[in-house]
Amino acid sequence: MHAEMMDKVREFARQELVDDQTQLDSFAEVPLPLYRRFHDLGLANWWLTGKDGEPGLGLADSVDVVSELAYGDAGAAFTLFISILGTSMVSLYGSDELRERYLDPMRAEGSFCATLGSEQDAGSELARTATTATVGADSVVITGEKFFSTNSGFADFLVVVARSTDTPPGHVAVLVPRDTPGVSIERRWEMNGLRSSGTYQVSLREVRVPAANVLRGPGLRMLEVGLNASRILIAATAVGIARRIRDLCMDYAKTKPLKGSTLLNNPVFAGKLGQMEMQIEVMRNQCRAAATEYDEIMAAPDPAAVFARRGTMKAAMTTKLFCGQAGWDIAGVGSEMFGGLGYTHDMAIGKLLRDMRYVAIVEGGDDVLRDVIFSRYVIPVSKRT
Amino acid sequence: MHAEMMDKVREFARQELVDDQTQLDSFAEVPLPLYRRFHDLGLANWWLTGKDGEPGLGLADSVDVVSELAYGDAGAAFTLFISILGTSMVSLYGSDELRERYLDPMRAEGSFCATLGSEQDAGSELARTATTATVGADSVVITGEKFFSTNSGFADFLVVVARSTDTPPGHVAVLVPRDTPGVSIERRWEMNGLRSSGTYQVSLREVRVPAANVLRGPGLRMLEVGLNASRILIAATAVGIARRIRDLCMDYAKTKPLKGSTLLNNPVFAGKLGQMEMQIEVMRNQCRAAATEYDEIMAAPDPAAVFARRGTMKAAMTTKLFCGQAGWDIAGVGSEMFGGLGYTHDMAIGKLLRDMRYVAIVEGGDDVLRDVIFSRYVIPVSKRT
Amino acid sequence: MHAEMMDKVREFARQELVDDQTQLDSFAEVPLPLYRRFHDLGLANWWLTGKDGEPGLGLADSVDVVSELAYGDAGAAFTLFISILGTSMVSLYGSDELRERYLDPMRAEGSFCATLGSEQDAGSELARTATTATVGADSVVITGEKFFSTNSGFADFLVVVARSTDTPPGHVAVLVPRDTPGVSIERRWEMNGLRSSGTYQVSLREVRVPAANVLRGPGLRMLEVGLNASRILIAATAVGIARRIRDLCMDYAKTKPLKGSTLLNNPVFAGKLGQMEMQIEVMRNQCRAAATEYDEIMAAPDPAAVFARRGTMKAAMTTKLFCGQAGWDIAGVGSEMFGGLGYTHDMAIGKLLRDMRYVAIVEGGDDVLRDVIFSRYVIPVSKRT
Amino acid sequence: MHAEMMDKVREFARQELVDDQTQLDSFAEVPLPLYRRFHDLGLANWWLTGKDGEPGLGLADSVDVVSELAYGDAGAAFTLFISILGTSMVSLYGSDELRERYLDPMRAEGSFCATLGSEQDAGSELARTATTATVGADSVVITGEKFFSTNSGFADFLVVVARSTDTPPGHVAVLVPRDTPGVSIERRWEMNGLRSSGTYQVSLREVRVPAANVLRGPGLRMLEVGLNASRILIAATAVGIARRIRDLCMDYAKTKPLKGSTLLNNPVFAGKLGQMEMQIEVMRNQCRAAATEYDEIMAAPDPAAVFARRGTMKAAMTTKLFCGQAGWDIAGVGSEMFGGLGYTHDMAIGKLLRDMRYVAIVEGGDDVLRDVIFSRYVIPVSKRT
Repeated sequence: MHAEMMDKVREFARQELVDDQTQLDSFAEVPLPLYRRFHDLGLANWWLTGKDGEPGLGLADSVDVVSELAYGDAGAAFTLFISILGTSMVSLYGSDELRERYLDPMRAEGSFCATLGSEQDAGSELARTATTATVGADSVVITGEKFFSTNSGFADFLVVVARSTDTPPGHVAVLVPRDTPGVSIERRWEMNGLRSSGTYQVSLREVRVPAANVLRGPGLRMLEVGLNASRILIAATAVGIARRIRDLCMDYAKTKPLKGSTLLNNPVFAGKLGQMEMQIEVMRNQCRAAATEYDEIMAAPDPAAVFARRGTMKAAMTTKLFCGQAGWDIAGVGSEMFGGLGYTHDMAIGKLLRDMRYVAIVEGGDDVLRDVIFSRYVIPVSKRT
Repeated sequence: MHAEMMDKVREFARQELVDDQTQLDSFAEVPLPLYRRFHDLGLANWWLTGKDGEPGLGLADSVDVVSELAYGDAGAAFTLFISILGTSMVSLYGSDELRERYLDPMRAEGSFCATLGSEQDAGSELARTATTATVGADSVVITGEKFFSTNSGFADFLVVVARSTDTPPGHVAVLVPRDTPGVSIERRWEMNGLRSSGTYQVSLREVRVPAANVLRGPGLRMLEVGLNASRILIAATAVGIARRIRDLCMDYAKTKPLKGSTLLNNPVFAGKLGQMEMQIEVMRNQCRAAATEYDEIMAAPDPAAVFARRGTMKAAMTTKLFCGQAGWDIAGVGSEMFGGLGYTHDMAIGKLLRDMRYVAIVEGGDDVLRDVIFSRYVIPVSKRT
Repeated sequence: MHAEMMDKVREFARQELVDDQTQLDSFAEVPLPLYRRFHDLGLANWWLTGKDGEPGLGLADSVDVVSELAYGDAGAAFTLFISILGTSMVSLYGSDELRERYLDPMRAEGSFCATLGSEQDAGSELARTATTATVGADSVVITGEKFFSTNSGFADFLVVVARSTDTPPGHVAVLVPRDTPGVSIERRWEMNGLRSSGTYQVSLREVRVPAANVLRGPGLRMLEVGLNASRILIAATAVGIARRIRDLCMDYAKTKPLKGSTLLNNPVFAGKLGQMEMQIEVMRNQCRAAATEYDEIMAAPDPAAVFARRGTMKAAMTTKLFCGQAGWDIAGVGSEMFGGLGYTHDMAIGKLLRDMRYVAIVEGGDDVLRDVIFSRYVIPVSKRT
Repeated sequence: MHAEMMDKVREFARQELVDDQTQLDSFAEVPLPLYRRFHDLGLANWWLTGKDGEPGLGLADSVDVVSELAYGDAGAAFTLFISILGTSMVSLYGSDELRERYLDPMRAEGSFCATLGSEQDAGSELARTATTATVGADSVVITGEKFFSTNSGFADFLVVVARSTDTPPGHVAVLVPRDTPGVSIERRWEMNGLRSSGTYQVSLREVRVPAANVLRGPGLRMLEVGLNASRILIAATAVGIARRIRDLCMDYAKTKPLKGSTLLNNPVFAGKLGQMEMQIEVMRNQCRAAATEYDEIMAAPDPAAVFARRGTMKAAMTTKLFCGQAGWDIAGVGSEMFGGLGYTHDMAIGKLLRDMRYVAIVEGGDDVLRDVIFSRYVIPVSKRT
């Protein structure tokens, strides 16, 4: 299935995304009709099980799907894969009923899910989450302000992380249908890049859902588990953007006159592109290696338990960390490649540079990730590579 | 005069520029009323002699003026200093009459000059300039297409670099009043940053001016000489943007909660800011050192001759090269400092990152500058530092 | 077999290498008794088939073997694996008789092979090889000067790359027993690092061997093929040295007092080690990915033909390029970690820094590799990642 | 005087140092006869007043002297200037008698002084100094272990930093003639570079000197003041080493064959050397700017009081920080420039790389300096550049 699907994805990216940079970068309304066309090709939410039980694609193959989408437009890629953060939490820790009711239709309907973890004051310290969930016998009531959540403006359901008001204190994740009273979108953030995606500030005021909507997992660690998949795919967008930058450089160099020849024949250019290709290959191999490790856990007898023990995978963090850095380096080199033209809207590099920037920022900045890698995977001698 | 003027500049920057980021970044019409207010303070074209013979500020002091302006808005800074590229060519190689007629009023009137060197095909290879100038006994006729020229949309006069059709072939620089028939603005470039400035594509069709408008200098080398001043001031904008980023980081860190304290007390943050401060100081010292060398030549008996021999100053190139690199590094670090917020239009860092990018691009990319430094200042043993 | 062997290798590295830094770094005679002890453990030439037909280890597993050896001493690691450059050429392109006579005994006897490609004038341009091979009906006569060849001082046989004097001109690789008359060691190079290894300048004067010793392969491309394995393992030494540096940093940080606590609790230290761990993981994954690709070709029906078509694998180049750069970065950070002590022979970091340096230098510097990657794997669109 | 002296220094460096790399790098005994010849040229301790009252050279000019010496050998340069750390403390805070007795003869005799600040446990935290000084009416008794001190093996006197046993607790600096009973050299450190210098571990056991030998200055801040001069000159060694590396690269490139021409004509090489030249110029300008600021304070009415208020100059820290980083970058690029030969003792680059490393390590590592810059010069808004 993979090869055929990849062809479709590539065709979609080249036809619908690459040629529509200006519109996708305009911060007009989120282009839902575009994402609908992706669904019409049978591609939406490709990692989920299909209607007839056809299994979704594994994360290793998803790396290539996302790279190809991001080659076209990183905002589109992000919009189309970021539901995985919530769906993997529901898939691992939700009840059968929740899965059937909320996950099963997603592939058939091409709908979205959003995860609401971030808060203004807590920042990267999830333990400081202030949104509260009061879990009663039948229902749970949620109140709080969520700062950044992607897709919540048009998602079918939200996965909300909150502090439980029970004693002892702890955290819960609750599935909240998007149309539940009390859920309101406060604003759409105008972001520097990924402008074809939608990220929102959401307020939750006494939002009441059935108690069965509470996921049965290890508190905040559930969010860590969900982030494993999404961080690897965020890293994969860096691969796609980097590949696009490389190809733009090559196209430009073929016709750019330089010293009686073209830029293509300039050894300094060759050296930069050789370095870039090296980085792209290492980025992709790292994404694949991390995703393969993820897929192996998912194929093991009780992935929910394995992930509950492990929480944040080292490989998910190192992959996002590495690809964010290598990607930024490539984008910086690329942004100097086109002379003055590259500093204008006539070329896509300005957009690609802004898009690339997000990789190192969302779902944990570099300092946060280094800190967690150090405390969990360097201090314990046995966890070191 | 310097201290008093610096106070005025600082006040202008803080009041008119810092607080108006969104508008300045909007790519609306070039904010000429704003630049008029700068003139009303007596500051416009500060490097030129005033009406009463009061000498203009030297380049070393201009570094601080530009840094302060760029702290507010790099596009405004660029607009307000880039006339120096043309005025220094006219000042050194124009006739007394040209100087009196065109330069002397500039400080009193706050008007602009634009320099038209760049062409699409020639790129960084000025010797491939295709615009022609046919110099007759009384008049000179110019025809060609100029790719990037800043301020030409509203300048009083243009300094046009062209290939002479005489034999032997050579290059000339000609002062062209902006309203001369045949001069037409083809487009304003939409640039990624410096969006409060105006850079234009200009076509020249049989533009006829008096032969006396031809500057009497060493061909293309006149442009090299003009670039000495402007490259140093471009580098100085990097200092201003970097100082602004540092201050934004400090302001943010004071209130950003982190692990029971604030970001300000985080050693990783301290290390980043210590590094940034080091870079800023080195950037400023390098700008001052280069500008001082420039001022010393200008104070020597025959600066026009000295510059004609020397052409591109090593220090002007190294300064732009260094500040472009250090500035980009600072902007990159800064752009990761504010978490998700820094990726939105709610914070200025996205604009500052885009503004900073121009330093390494305009008036010679890094590869071009390294190449010239190598051939002129490393191969000859005596020219090495 | 792999796990058991890895235990033995690790034990050897920790007991025989880690604790003997000063001696291994002394540039005394090549410690052949040490390498003999490695053989006595049944480990020497682990990639070759054993006496009883037991298959050797694949390249992916060899990555871990080399990493573990280099954790102890990179010079020892290099000495013990670099025979693979020659053995893979003989294995793929030698006659059955050559393989039986020269390769089969190597694992049983723990002997060495050396490859003689490098020449002073040719440098990285192998096509300029000046050593000549005159191939007659029965014998081939070789004359030339080879600049750098590792292990040739004590190898059993040499694989010599030479220019054929036939028409049309071409290149050959010839197996030369080390004791053939005319082979003489001119000098042992005193190298900055890897001082427990031996690299030699060798002169060949009318060296005559049977014509059957000429390998039957695609000229210079045979050397490219041999370099695929050795470059990946050179990259793997960077992984081992980096892991060692990380562990030294951690050991030091536990007891180093800092601001009322220890260095271990300093967030700046944590950030550096988190970054290092990330780099180490990416390096290892890249080595494994490249080696796995190599192993897949070796497992295909006709690897000699596949490799003859492909020549230098992209992955072998990108792996050495990446690990050389990341490794040097880690070594630089490490060399600043121990304060003044780290600048003395009391700590191993000075040696590790010098050892690390070789990765980016031997078997193709970064500029050479980027150039080849560009021309072979970026220009052809289908070869891009 | 400067120009004439520079000629002598340059001649000394080229004749006595450049051509004697192997010996200078051998870690044989400190080459005191060599340093005697430097004195015989009238150059030793050039910053001090001469016999006939001839003033010493300022720090700005000393930057060039040190750069020229370090071009020859950084260990020699360090040996010949590092006395300035102690002499500036004595000069600013010693009694007239101490100055007359100990400083005045230094230029006439070419003798050395050593400063003993470092201790094993205290590391960079000078406030944790454990060496004690019991100051009585007539004499002071010092006991402690000093970890790293350069020149103490052959200096005429030592300046020892110690914790006063008085109440309230404080720190003192005491001038101790080298032959005072109780002073003993425990070991000479074998360092990775600067091997022609001598750095020692010194023990002080009940060392008794007259109470008048206690400097009358602001405790630990006296050491900070002394470090201002030495840090700037340490940075200046980086300039010299970098200039040497550049020249070695150029010499090599002229004869190294590459693709039918020489390396000199390779654009990638040109780009690297252009970048290097830029960095060298910025390094030198930064050293000069910092030294000029220092000289201005020394020329002010009461430099001892100004320095007592200011302590560590920002410029001294930023200069060492910058030159250590830029120098290391240059050394890294240089160490890859010579292919395999550059990895052998046949070329000087291995030594130059090791020598360069010290700049970022001695007298405050980068993390320490960034931390102090942050707390003293970024947090107070008025101190920012």
